[in-house]
Amino acid sequence: MAEESVPALRWEELPEGPVVVLLDQTRLPAEEVELVCTDVPALVDAIQSLAVRGAPLLGIAGGYGVALAAARGFDVADAAEQLARARPTAVNLAYGARRVEAAHQAASRAGSDSGRAAAQALAEARTLHREDAEASDRIAEHGIALLDELVPGGGLRILTHCNTGRLVSGGHGTALGIVRAVHRAGELRRLWVDETRPLLQGARLTAYEAAREGMTYSVLADGAAGSLFAAGEVDAVVVGADRIAADGSVANKVGTYSLAVLAGHHGVPFLVAAPVTTMDPQTESGDDIEVEQRPGHEVTEIPWGRGTGGSPEPTGGIPLAPVGAQAYNPAFDVTPPELVTAVVTDRGVASPVTAENIAVLCSASRRGLSRSANGMMNP
Amino acid sequence: MAEESVPALRWEELPEGPVVVLLDQTRLPAEEVELVCTDVPALVDAIQSLAVRGAPLLGIAGGYGVALAAARGFDVADAAEQLARARPTAVNLAYGARRVEAAHQAASRAGSDSGRAAAQALAEARTLHREDAEASDRIAEHGIALLDELVPGGGLRILTHCNTGRLVSGGHGTALGIVRAVHRAGELRRLWVDETRPLLQGARLTAYEAAREGMTYSVLADGAAGSLFAAGEVDAVVVGADRIAADGSVANKVGTYSLAVLAGHHGVPFLVAAPVTTMDPQTESGDDIEVEQRPGHEVTEIPWGRGTGGSPEPTGGIPLAPVGAQAYNPAFDVTPPELVTAVVTDRGVASPVTAENIAVLCSASRRGLSRSANGMMNP
Repeated sequence: MAEESVPALRWEELPEGPVVVLLDQTRLPAEEVELVCTDVPALVDAIQSLAVRGAPLLGIAGGYGVALAAARGFDVADAAEQLARARPTAVNLAYGARRVEAAHQAASRAGSDSGRAAAQALAEARTLHREDAEASDRIAEHGIALLDELVPGGGLRILTHCNTGRLVSGGHGTALGIVRAVHRAGELRRLWVDETRPLLQGARLTAYEAAREGMTYSVLADGAAGSLFAAGEVDAVVVGADRIAADGSVANKVGTYSLAVLAGHHGVPFLVAAPVTTMDPQTESGDDIEVEQRPGHEVTEIPWGRGTGGSPEPTGGIPLAPVGAQAYNPAFDVTPPELVTAVVTDRGVASPVTAENIAVLCSASRRGLSRSANGMMNP
Repeated sequence: MAEESVPALRWEELPEGPVVVLLDQTRLPAEEVELVCTDVPALVDAIQSLAVRGAPLLGIAGGYGVALAAARGFDVADAAEQLARARPTAVNLAYGARRVEAAHQAASRAGSDSGRAAAQALAEARTLHREDAEASDRIAEHGIALLDELVPGGGLRILTHCNTGRLVSGGHGTALGIVRAVHRAGELRRLWVDETRPLLQGARLTAYEAAREGMTYSVLADGAAGSLFAAGEVDAVVVGADRIAADGSVANKVGTYSLAVLAGHHGVPFLVAAPVTTMDPQTESGDDIEVEQRPGHEVTEIPWGRGTGGSPEPTGGIPLAPVGAQAYNPAFDVTPPELVTAVVTDRGVASPVTAENIAVLCSASRRGLSRSANGMMNP
C-alpha cells in the first residue's frame, strides 16, 4: 500500500496483560480507530457489530480470541464456544476458534501447565494468521493466472462486491487480493465497486483499499451493476465467500447471487475466491447453510452516531423508512455451483464447480498438498 | 388512504398570483413539507433535485409549469423548452409541457388575448391531471385482471422497485396503483419494497404509501431481492416506467434490469405499468433512450442536511466513500422487451411485448380508443 496502513487485527502484550487490537471497520473510511479487546465478550461484541468482519479475518479473530482467554485464565472451552457461535454463516470463525482450542487442549493433555498451554494456543493463532497471509498470495497467483486464461488480453474491468482485501485477511485478501495482483501487473482497467448495502462495505472499505492501492475504481449502487453488464462493461466478477458447501454452493454477502445470475445471463466469468478453510465438507449443499438475519434497522436507518465495537442494537440512527417499517435483512445469500465459473483457493482452482472438484481441494488441504482440482493450475 | 394525505402537486391561486405547490419528496417520510413555485426556474430546480419526480407526475408538473408561465406573463415557448429539458429520460415531462404549450399556442392563434390563452393552458394542464388520475384506475383494473390470470389463487407476494404510487400520479399511481388494487381486493400477502438506492424512493416513499394504505410490507436492500427469488418468495414483479420505446424496451429506475433478469431466471412474471403517455414511438429501441447520469455524490455521500427543492449540488453531505471516490450513477436502466412479461397501460395490455403490440396501444391512444393490444383485456 502507498501509505503505512493500520493492520486489521493484531495481538499486543501490554503491561496489564495481552489484548487483541482491532481496526474498527464500522468507522472507516472516515476514521482509523482501534478497539482494544481485553476479553472474549468484548471480541464477540466487535464481531457481531461488524467492527471486525470478513471470513478469513473472522477465523484469525476466533483463534486469537481463544488464545486471549487462555492467556488471561478464562475458560477456554467456553470462550471457543462463544466465539464459534458469534455469527453463524462464516465457517472460518468456528474453524479458527476450534483449531486454537484444540492446540490448547493438546498441550494441556500433554501435561503443559496453564502458561505453556496458553503459549501453545497463541502460537497456533499466530500460525493461522501467517497461513492466511500465505493463502492470500496463493489465491492471487491462481486468480491472475485463471483470469489471464478466461479473459486474455488484459485491461480488465472487474466488478466486485463487499470487501475482501487486507481488511479481512492476514495478507492481501481473497477476491480483492486477486484484483490487487491484476492491478500490480498493470492489467486493471477499472474496478467496479458495488457499494454493498446495507452496511456499505464496498463504498466504505473496498473503495478505501482501492484508493490506497492507487487503483482506478468507481463506486456504484448495487442496482446499477445490471446496466454495466448490459453495456458490456464487465469482463469478470470476482467475489469472496463466507462458506462453500460440499456441492460448491457459495454463501457470500447478500447481493452476490444477483450478480451471479447477471454474469450468467451475460456470459461473464464469475469467480469466487477463498482459502480452503472457507470450504465446509460438513455442509452438504446450499440449503444446509444457515444464513444470518441481521436487524432491520440496518436497512431502515442510517446508523449515524451509533457507538461502535459495542452494541449491535439500534441507538438512535436517522430513520430512512417510516417509523415501524419492517425489513428483510439477510446478511448473505447462496449462489448455486452452476452459476460459479470457478472457485479459486490457495490450493488450486475448482472449475467446473462440482462436488468432486471441491472434494479434491478439501482433501488436498487436509493432506497439506498443493495441487489443483482440475490439474490446470498447479502452483 | 387511511389518513388525509397531502397531494403530490396542486395549483393554487394566491392573492399575489398563481403558484404550483409541490409536496417535497426529498423530505419524506420524515416531514411533509410543501414547496411553493412561483416561476418555471423554481419548478425546474424542484424537478432536478427530485423534490417532484416520477414519470406521470413529471408530465403533470410540466403541464402546470407551462400554465404558470402563461398566467404570469413569461415566455411560454421558453418555459416549455426549459421544462421539457429539465430531465432527459422520462418522456412524460416533455409530453406534458409540449401539450400545454400547444393548447396555449392554439388559443393565441385563434385570437385569444393573453389572459384567455393562459386560461386555456391551465384548462389543458387540469385535463392532463384528470386524465392521469383516470389512467391510474384503468391501469389498476388491467393489472389486477392480468395478475389474476398469471398467478391465480390470490395471496400474492409482489416485489416492486422505486416509487410509483400517489406520489407520482394524479391518481393512485401505476405499479403501486396495481398493488393497491390487489391489497384492496384482499389478495396482497406481502409487498416487497426494494429500498432503491441511491435515493431510497422505495424505503422512503413506497414504504410511506404502503404504511398509509395498511399493506403488509417489508423493505429490503436492492441486493437482497435475489435471495427472495431463490427462496420462491416472489409471485410477481410490478414496476413502473419512465419511457417505453417503440420496440417495447423499458427505461425505468436503475436496478429494474437486474430484477427483470432475476425474474426471467426464476420464471416469475415481470409486469411494467405505465400510462400510454409513457410510450414514445419516436424512440425506436432501448439503445436510443438517453439515460440520465446523476451526480456521484448521491452514491458517495448521505445528503443529510442538504437544502431541498433547490440545488442538486452537494452541500456538505456526510461522506460514505473515501474523499475523491469516483461513482457511476445512472438514474435509469433499460430492460429489453423479451424480459418483460407484459406492459400494462390505461389502454390495455401488451403481452407478449412486441413492437406490433406496442404500436396497437399507441394508435389506440391516438385515436382515443380503449382496446387492448392482445384482445384479452378489453376494459
